[in-house]
Amino acid sequence: MSKENMMYEGKAKQVYATNDPAYVIVSYKDDATAFNGEKKGQIADKGIFNNSITTVLFEILEEKGIPTHFIEKLNERDQLCKAVTIVPLEVIVRNVIAGSMAKRLGIEEGTEIPNTIFEICYKNDEYGDPLINDDHAVAMRLTTYDELKKIYAITRDINKIMMDFFDKQGIRLIDFKLEFGKTADGTLLLADEISPDTCRFWDKNTNQKLDKDRFRRDLGDVQEAYKEILSRVEKG
Amino acid sequence: MSKENMMYEGKAKQVYATNDPAYVIVSYKDDATAFNGEKKGQIADKGIFNNSITTVLFEILEEKGIPTHFIEKLNERDQLCKAVTIVPLEVIVRNVIAGSMAKRLGIEEGTEIPNTIFEICYKNDEYGDPLINDDHAVAMRLTTYDELKKIYAITRDINKIMMDFFDKQGIRLIDFKLEFGKTADGTLLLADEISPDTCRFWDKNTNQKLDKDRFRRDLGDVQEAYKEILSRVEKG
Repeated sequence: MSKENMMYEGKAKQVYATNDPAYVIVSYKDDATAFNGEKKGQIADKGIFNNSITTVLFEILEEKGIPTHFIEKLNERDQLCKAVTIVPLEVIVRNVIAGSMAKRLGIEEGTEIPNTIFEICYKNDEYGDPLINDDHAVAMRLTTYDELKKIYAITRDINKIMMDFFDKQGIRLIDFKLEFGKTADGTLLLADEISPDTCRFWDKNTNQKLDKDRFRRDLGDVQEAYKEILSRVEKG
Repeated sequence: MSKENMMYEGKAKQVYATNDPAYVIVSYKDDATAFNGEKKGQIADKGIFNNSITTVLFEILEEKGIPTHFIEKLNERDQLCKAVTIVPLEVIVRNVIAGSMAKRLGIEEGTEIPNTIFEICYKNDEYGDPLINDDHAVAMRLTTYDELKKIYAITRDINKIMMDFFDKQGIRLIDFKLEFGKTADGTLLLADEISPDTCRFWDKNTNQKLDKDRFRRDLGDVQEAYKEILSRVEKG
């Protein structure tokens, strides 16, 4: 499969066409952004770490029956994936209160909750990826109630698999963001990545943050956190 | 029933105890606020109009089987209501896109939508009554999934009754906000008010705004809009 012209460049990845329209090559960059692009920087070798971390996690998910866009890792930064049209939603799972939700609602970060929170945000940089609910998403024709039901069911399964996996690696899965896509024939697949860019990982013993919050909040040892997650994920 | 000490003062109403703890007297003020209290003013006789409008609407809803806190209008500004503990949610129904939703999501005001939108916001001035979803509300222990199911069912019925009623009065019911409360024995009741303070009403023929947006947006003829709604509601 040959890497052809770049079709799309996001904040952390580029997507290249291949000679087969059913496949794309996703290339992981070192660029890091936060606060809807207000803060910009680079994390050395982040693309290499995230490509490897996503590869391990998507392989585990596929093995457990989750349909994903992932085919195989091609090299340090590239992976071969099925071509999908992204559903313009960020699907967020919160097992513990942290980040934007803590701030928006005045709840202390780290607060344990009696039920898992599933959120959807409208994926739109101009409007700051605002929180919406199912009725908004359907009214805006971003998805359908039926597709949302499928998305929530898959997301719930992913959370169970990931919670279990990370717990064994001594990591608390605080929250994470997923994106879904559809192939040309309409098949719904998990797309995007799962990495310290898209998850909050806290060490089970020390509660040390091992994710992009180290960059967002200038906590130092940013690269080390990504490296640590890769090392624990590879042990799994 | 005697009006005793004031128990609570909100932006548009005061709540007084009575000699029976199961009942309160709600007194409608002329104070008007907007944008989470940033804009403040008075609309002459608003309290008189809203007391009368709410009385007519709650009587119609009760007649159609909706359980409400309303007992009777006592005088120009006061109504006797059942004492309730307010569920700290603003329940919003949107039949047409307008107001904060239009702004948040970049959709033109007046856009027709294929499905009714039901929203809940966390009733908390300090955090600007932020939009939440069912999982947030339950995680924050504001309500339960079971209570939410009941709230949505009643809200859906209210929307049908109100759409039908206002259509006959030549008014488009664009959106509105409800609040619910619980009596000492746990009975869920529609509480608060339904008025041009809490609804968007557009004239069916001219799309002229007949609600608090005239105050929010300095459109003039504010009192006339409240008067017009009362006059149409009384005809119904």
